[in-house]
Amino acid sequence: MSDSLEESHDPWLLTPGPLTTSKTVKEAMLHDFGSRDERFISINHHVRTRLVEIIDGKDSHVCVPLQGSGTFVVEAMLSNFVPESGKVLILINGAYGVRMKTICDYHKRPVETLVWNEDQPVDPRLVASKLSEDASITHVAVVHCETTTGILNPIKDIAEVVKEAKRALLIDSMSAFGALEVSAKLIPFDALVASSNKCLEGSPGMGFCLADKSALLKTEGNADSLCFDLFEQWKGLEANGQWRFTPPTHCILAFHQALAEFDEEGGVQGRGGRYRANCDLLVKGMRELGFETLLPDNLQAPIIITFKMPSDSAFDFQTFYDGLSARGYVIYPGKLTVAESFRMGCIGRLNQQHMQGALDAVTEVMRQMGVDSGSPD
Amino acid sequence: MSDSLEESHDPWLLTPGPLTTSKTVKEAMLHDFGSRDERFISINHHVRTRLVEIIDGKDSHVCVPLQGSGTFVVEAMLSNFVPESGKVLILINGAYGVRMKTICDYHKRPVETLVWNEDQPVDPRLVASKLSEDASITHVAVVHCETTTGILNPIKDIAEVVKEAKRALLIDSMSAFGALEVSAKLIPFDALVASSNKCLEGSPGMGFCLADKSALLKTEGNADSLCFDLFEQWKGLEANGQWRFTPPTHCILAFHQALAEFDEEGGVQGRGGRYRANCDLLVKGMRELGFETLLPDNLQAPIIITFKMPSDSAFDFQTFYDGLSARGYVIYPGKLTVAESFRMGCIGRLNQQHMQGALDAVTEVMRQMGVDSGSPD
Repeated sequence: MSDSLEESHDPWLLTPGPLTTSKTVKEAMLHDFGSRDERFISINHHVRTRLVEIIDGKDSHVCVPLQGSGTFVVEAMLSNFVPESGKVLILINGAYGVRMKTICDYHKRPVETLVWNEDQPVDPRLVASKLSEDASITHVAVVHCETTTGILNPIKDIAEVVKEAKRALLIDSMSAFGALEVSAKLIPFDALVASSNKCLEGSPGMGFCLADKSALLKTEGNADSLCFDLFEQWKGLEANGQWRFTPPTHCILAFHQALAEFDEEGGVQGRGGRYRANCDLLVKGMRELGFETLLPDNLQAPIIITFKMPSDSAFDFQTFYDGLSARGYVIYPGKLTVAESFRMGCIGRLNQQHMQGALDAVTEVMRQMGVDSGSPD
Repeated sequence: MSDSLEESHDPWLLTPGPLTTSKTVKEAMLHDFGSRDERFISINHHVRTRLVEIIDGKDSHVCVPLQGSGTFVVEAMLSNFVPESGKVLILINGAYGVRMKTICDYHKRPVETLVWNEDQPVDPRLVASKLSEDASITHVAVVHCETTTGILNPIKDIAEVVKEAKRALLIDSMSAFGALEVSAKLIPFDALVASSNKCLEGSPGMGFCLADKSALLKTEGNADSLCFDLFEQWKGLEANGQWRFTPPTHCILAFHQALAEFDEEGGVQGRGGRYRANCDLLVKGMRELGFETLLPDNLQAPIIITFKMPSDSAFDFQTFYDGLSARGYVIYPGKLTVAESFRMGCIGRLNQQHMQGALDAVTEVMRQMGVDSGSPD
């Protein structure tokens, strides 16, 4: 990591995104490329190829990028891969699972759901029973890391169950992709979606779908939206290397640079390792300050951590949030239905220095609020 | 215009987009903002307010921004404003009109079309007859400037006819907005869409819909896509100033800066004036070199110009394109069905110097190809 704390005056974003990106990623956006420029076409080709390599899917999978936020490509995946005549079983243990249900309702795609508490991972055994009970289910959709809490779902075990039952798996790996290993050889799936701006540390503005090629070919005609037609988007890119509609050129240049930095860091191993170290330092430090995590460590993905709101009446969340913000650390409100909480992310261009800086800021703000922090000083 | 030819080594984009943007617009992207940051929320508020001011719509219209390319917001407009029980009359004289028809087919929205040749503007009298014949038509959709040819459609006259017949008007002003005046007080419309990256000279990655507020309120429940639900997008922004799904933060920062530069240039008058001068210089110079425009001057919008391919057998388009490209000027292939052609744009951060530079490059390349250019030297 070449970026020191001094290089930027922007706040450090301890959030699930938009995230802190490197200076060099942002500087890649200082160029205007035409969408038909050979260099730009080659950059797109490289990005798409590299993303497929990350899942070890060269022989089986293809990459279809899509303009918009991560939710755009989740919507495209569900409405393309689940045909009107199909039925998707959505595994819900947080807001992003609920959102997948909402998307299917908009598109009138038949849906079944299995719902767990937000602090419980999806249970593959219940998925297996459901699939054996209901033969009309054609697809299963799951969120890899539920950003609602930061919980890690066991997608490998789920994939096995789904494969065993001869159904197709759709994965929303938005906040996990690039930090947690996903091999298409070990985890069979028809489609997985993620975005440029999470663990791959590009700028926001595009998502991508990594699709089993034979499954993608079968989606022809399923789309009920021109822009979200992933088959046509793929066909267009294959035909001449160009996007069907104006690409977010600057965002793609940033993403290309971000992938180079991802490789420099050692790919999933390096990136995931840094995030894990960030997560460990943050959790340890926050516990020393008296905070409790929502999740036990074995369920915690190294992405974003949910902390329970302290019960001390001297603690006021807005003061806490503003105090951290004034010190240059942006955290995230909770999204839980079960408990008062807040979240701190450990992804983006942040390292141990930033985590320690955030802990120091928390210590100061707690002291100012007069909260008994459990800190020795 | 502070940008000199020397400040950038990127090619000059004489295209319909992505366009050349100013250095300062690109530099605005060198910051990472959290989506809940008060400054970011205020920037979004300013952008939305300013866009409504441009159409003089403060008392009647609201702005709903949307992630993605321009086509994304065209799709959102059509699928939100035309209910399943409605019927839209699409006025077609180019590829973007055809695309609106394709969108409606995806969304199963009933469609009628009126079709003109690509070198003919839409005729309001035929629109009036069609509306009086078919009482089931609820909406009329038209492209302001058809980028296929660069032809200007008479949207004021069309708006009058549509209003007279008590129907609602939807305008795709993608390539014209910001360069040609559109006052909601003079041109009644339910919705108009455009993007950050055309005549407003931001970076690509978002579009926006300027909607009559009472018409927008009536679209509640019409959307058949979560991401394209403009009513919900608007409601979310009104509730807390935040986008429902991750905003393209860097693109919005660039757009904010681009709008400041738009104002510095004198708004629509200044921006449109520069483009008109660019267009006039380019057309005059190209005619002197023996090229013919597809359109007569009175139908030509000052956005992009279609030139007929020279009949001289020494002229080879790929050589021409590559020769200009090597000299730093990127032009655009034709999209016509009626004639062999190519296009040169006069929008983006380009001025008379750039147009003259492009003409000089054309002169050189023509001489190298041994084409009789009609030039005296």
